[in-house]
Amino acid sequence: MRNNYCLIMAGGSGTRFWPRSRTKKPKQYLNIFGDQSLIQATVQRFAQFMSEENIFIVSAKTQQEVLEEQVANLPKENLIYEPVGKNTLPAIGLAALFVAEKDPEGILIVSPSDHLIQNDPLFIQTIESAALIADKTNGIVTIGITPKYPATGYGYVQTNEEVSLGQTIKSYSVQKFVEKPNHAVASGYLQQGGFFWNSGIFVFKVSVFLESVKNFAPALYADLLRIKAAIGTDQFETALDEIYRQVTSISIDYGILEKAENVFLVQGDFVWNDLGSWEEVYKYDQKDENQNAVRGEAILLDTKNSYVYAPDSLVAVVGLEDVIVVQEGNTILVCKRDKAEEIKQVVGEIARRKLDQFL
Amino acid sequence: MRNNYCLIMAGGSGTRFWPRSRTKKPKQYLNIFGDQSLIQATVQRFAQFMSEENIFIVSAKTQQEVLEEQVANLPKENLIYEPVGKNTLPAIGLAALFVAEKDPEGILIVSPSDHLIQNDPLFIQTIESAALIADKTNGIVTIGITPKYPATGYGYVQTNEEVSLGQTIKSYSVQKFVEKPNHAVASGYLQQGGFFWNSGIFVFKVSVFLESVKNFAPALYADLLRIKAAIGTDQFETALDEIYRQVTSISIDYGILEKAENVFLVQGDFVWNDLGSWEEVYKYDQKDENQNAVRGEAILLDTKNSYVYAPDSLVAVVGLEDVIVVQEGNTILVCKRDKAEEIKQVVGEIARRKLDQFL
Repeated sequence: MRNNYCLIMAGGSGTRFWPRSRTKKPKQYLNIFGDQSLIQATVQRFAQFMSEENIFIVSAKTQQEVLEEQVANLPKENLIYEPVGKNTLPAIGLAALFVAEKDPEGILIVSPSDHLIQNDPLFIQTIESAALIADKTNGIVTIGITPKYPATGYGYVQTNEEVSLGQTIKSYSVQKFVEKPNHAVASGYLQQGGFFWNSGIFVFKVSVFLESVKNFAPALYADLLRIKAAIGTDQFETALDEIYRQVTSISIDYGILEKAENVFLVQGDFVWNDLGSWEEVYKYDQKDENQNAVRGEAILLDTKNSYVYAPDSLVAVVGLEDVIVVQEGNTILVCKRDKAEEIKQVVGEIARRKLDQFL
Repeated sequence: MRNNYCLIMAGGSGTRFWPRSRTKKPKQYLNIFGDQSLIQATVQRFAQFMSEENIFIVSAKTQQEVLEEQVANLPKENLIYEPVGKNTLPAIGLAALFVAEKDPEGILIVSPSDHLIQNDPLFIQTIESAALIADKTNGIVTIGITPKYPATGYGYVQTNEEVSLGQTIKSYSVQKFVEKPNHAVASGYLQQGGFFWNSGIFVFKVSVFLESVKNFAPALYADLLRIKAAIGTDQFETALDEIYRQVTSISIDYGILEKAENVFLVQGDFVWNDLGSWEEVYKYDQKDENQNAVRGEAILLDTKNSYVYAPDSLVAVVGLEDVIVVQEGNTILVCKRDKAEEIKQVVGEIARRKLDQFL
């Protein structure tokens, strides 16, 4: 039985959760659904079936302080920092070097840090099925979520024949990855069948991944070898910084998955959501009899279908429907639920007004 | 020419401007429309045509600190405090004792402290007409606002024949005072003519007022005489406290105006509003091209017909119409404009939850 490792991708930054997500505290560090942040919940999910020694995180240097504070239970040497963001393939490549130092034939599970996953036993069973497929086939395995509706916010994976190895969790060979579709195309996918949402969770042997980098991204592979040579020396930081800065940004999807032959999909039927907006948070949070979700102290009168987050204020909402109210420090967002995509314009306007203390 | 004095009534407290108005800082102390509070604007309005020595304020003992801070330009001895609130007639009676000490035959203008008045020259001209009527007739004069629409939130005054003394500002004898009507009744008043909104501004000789108290509220008059006897002695505070606490609460309207014979009305055509709710504040504040009124730093996207007050936060409002957003310290109100009357229920709920720091 091979050892399992996980690599949690925590370098992301974004504006969709403004005012809660800030430059120094992106979404993965927010306690959206309770006391734990999303990354803490992710770590805890993996710690149910692997040692904390086996859990790695790749993040941005700018997030070091908040990351170390939030995952103090993990070994510091498992926290790997990109000097600059270069998208997922270089980030995974960098982290894979460290996992390979420990166990080059180990199974690596790459996972986002900021998604919602419910039903942990089914999640673990799915991951273990994926690990088995990755081991037996020397393939690259992606977890595909059975689509519930024709979502236009997710990439899809189209599958071919089933390749399940006698497991209850179904597996398929992958035909192709497709970009976020429009509504008509997505509806077609659901009607046709065999399409899954791309969860961003990938499973492979470390050696298989590095071999794929060598085949499909040889320049990156050469750079990774140079970084690897510096590991453990006192030139490491300087070398990493110098080499990594000139690496080409590229996603693992585009750089490897769309090019590799031996790609498989394991079907995920656990509750999954990428929490792309406050709207998604509202959908998955607990609600009262008026379909309001409230985090913090709030008084809602004649108000329904609304979300309120106010950890250290008293918020009163009167006579409204379908609104999101979020207070964070000295910033307040009041947003109609179906207009949440305009939050990025708010952030742009804050920057334009040079009100950087609110970013 | 008699001297003019004014008495500004500043004892009110209320919940309609929560979260800005708090137990210790009612509406009159709020800077609703700019740097000045409503009471500061009221003082300044009167200071245009009388000495600050002639401006008196009657308030509640609990408001002493904020009042002294806001009207530091007035003589301290002109600030008179009710030990407990007893409605307008005892409050005016108490203050009238002090004005009478200075000038028993002076003209006293009694004015609310928390209303909006625009067009100061016309206001002053109206008050001076009222002072002339009060002097010539030894009557009690009220300022009546020409009604603009069938308001149900104001009391009305019905007039008889015109009694103007060759002035451009019209004056009438008063037939009766009527309580806040329903919409149909108010529409009837406007159709019939001769009805005015009761502004709460009254003008009379101090001696005429005290004589009226003697006639229509003899028990109060006796108490006032006892208080008067203690003025200037070191028993004053104790005597005031003891006597005033057992005085009966009663309004000047009910206690005198509705009973007196020689009551007149001077027509007020200046801009006047009692600012009874955030809705009224929105109506009278400056607006941008989307009909939004914003006080403080705010970003409004896809939002119109809304009011935002946020002195020390950044508020972003996205995709909403007809909302009121008010931040004050660690409290936030988000209210549909036509539901502003429910704010008192919010305040009740805060008390029920024992969250007194937010009251």
